[in-house]
Amino acid sequence: HEVIIETPHHSRHMGEMDLDSLTDIVTVYRDRIIDLYKDKRLRYALIFKNHGKTAGASLEHPHTQLIATPITPRTIEQELDSAKEHFRHKERCLFCDIVQNELDQDERIVFQTTNFIAFCPFASRFPFEMRIYPKKHSHDYTLMQSHELREFAYVVKTVLLALRRSLDDPAFNFMLHTAPNPVHRPSRPQYWTTLPYDWHWHLEIIPRLTRVAGFEWGTGFYINPTPPEVAAQYLRDMVEKIEEERSQEDL
Amino acid sequence: HEVIIETPHHSRHMGEMDLDSLTDIVTVYRDRIIDLYKDKRLRYALIFKNHGKTAGASLEHPHTQLIATPITPRTIEQELDSAKEHFRHKERCLFCDIVQNELDQDERIVFQTTNFIAFCPFASRFPFEMRIYPKKHSHDYTLMQSHELREFAYVVKTVLLALRRSLDDPAFNFMLHTAPNPVHRPSRPQYWTTLPYDWHWHLEIIPRLTRVAGFEWGTGFYINPTPPEVAAQYLRDMVEKIEEERSQEDL
Repeated sequence: HEVIIETPHHSRHMGEMDLDSLTDIVTVYRDRIIDLYKDKRLRYALIFKNHGKTAGASLEHPHTQLIATPITPRTIEQELDSAKEHFRHKERCLFCDIVQNELDQDERIVFQTTNFIAFCPFASRFPFEMRIYPKKHSHDYTLMQSHELREFAYVVKTVLLALRRSLDDPAFNFMLHTAPNPVHRPSRPQYWTTLPYDWHWHLEIIPRLTRVAGFEWGTGFYINPTPPEVAAQYLRDMVEKIEEERSQEDL
Repeated sequence: HEVIIETPHHSRHMGEMDLDSLTDIVTVYRDRIIDLYKDKRLRYALIFKNHGKTAGASLEHPHTQLIATPITPRTIEQELDSAKEHFRHKERCLFCDIVQNELDQDERIVFQTTNFIAFCPFASRFPFEMRIYPKKHSHDYTLMQSHELREFAYVVKTVLLALRRSLDDPAFNFMLHTAPNPVHRPSRPQYWTTLPYDWHWHLEIIPRLTRVAGFEWGTGFYINPTPPEVAAQYLRDMVEKIEEERSQEDL
């Protein structure tokens, strides 16, 4: 369990950090996973952030956490299985299909750059839930190059700032879904050997505006009063405003 | 979606209701499920309670909710599958095995009567998590007879009062796990036809003392700082005190 201190400034929101600092942070994510995966016992390293008390943050100072586990997490395993199943049927990456669908429909996109897309997922469990995917197929966050990390940091910064400004700094969690430790793949035929083709790393952002209660715990279903199209419109408008302000500052 | 108003008294905790009232409430649970299952479209009726704001309660007045869904909930489906798998291997009900194990080990039991047992589960996800099972095999809550409902109400009342008094009225959820609508079973060979043998209804009680954060959302694993043996000891001591007070009052 590692705690990544993001900044010396006690109350600086991730959306308000300068791009160089945030690039450093997402580079540390990559480098720590690479280093921990040298240890064969560690099957998965989860990068996650809890912002705000409702999201379970026990420290106020900006930080991200990393917990590496000797087992592939259940949530990741279920996603890996779904992705494999989709690939078996269609011979295409499930997440590449989702990206293409979002680009075609153009109703839930919050922000995009050359290589990244941020959108509110079609079946959002929570109001204002967002995902950031690389547009080009890439199964493993640790393969990201410096210029890509900088671009990814820019997208993270922009959508988190839009979230903060749209909803009065709501509590949120984010979780990085990347590939399990590749050291075990070659030798184990059942161990997601097709993963480089069918898996696609991504960041999940879940604002904590509603409470998970008895219905959710009892069913595994989620009641979400905000359609993702409405949430995306709201966030997109804020992103446009932010981008406009930025271009003003540059003049 | 139905809301069951438990009492005319605005602030009466379920643990402090008289036994007749609570027997009425758990009888209403049974009768409403029976009635709703006449509608073939409804596959499952989830009875659940949110107590306290942290548990997602939006109304203060004591109430239970029922949501019937046209699909078997994911959580219930996963449990049904696990139970079926256990039965296929062992030819025994998974939950009967758990009850026997708890009685043998006698380390996590909170309270028991002739026909019911309340305990903190071996792999508790949350501090002070509890389950109430009928000791004798029974797959369907709606098959409960009046005297059994009264005894069940007595156990619910006692453990909820113990929870309230031990931890200063914590927020909690409970969810009833019972059988899906039996109307679909005979005609569908893959539809849990062995369910009357391998499934066992039960009540799950989860106090909301810790927050579900990024790690839990990212992994499906739970960090629980309180061993179930410690929680059970604490609750058991309070149950003893409550039972003693009751016997004093009866004198």
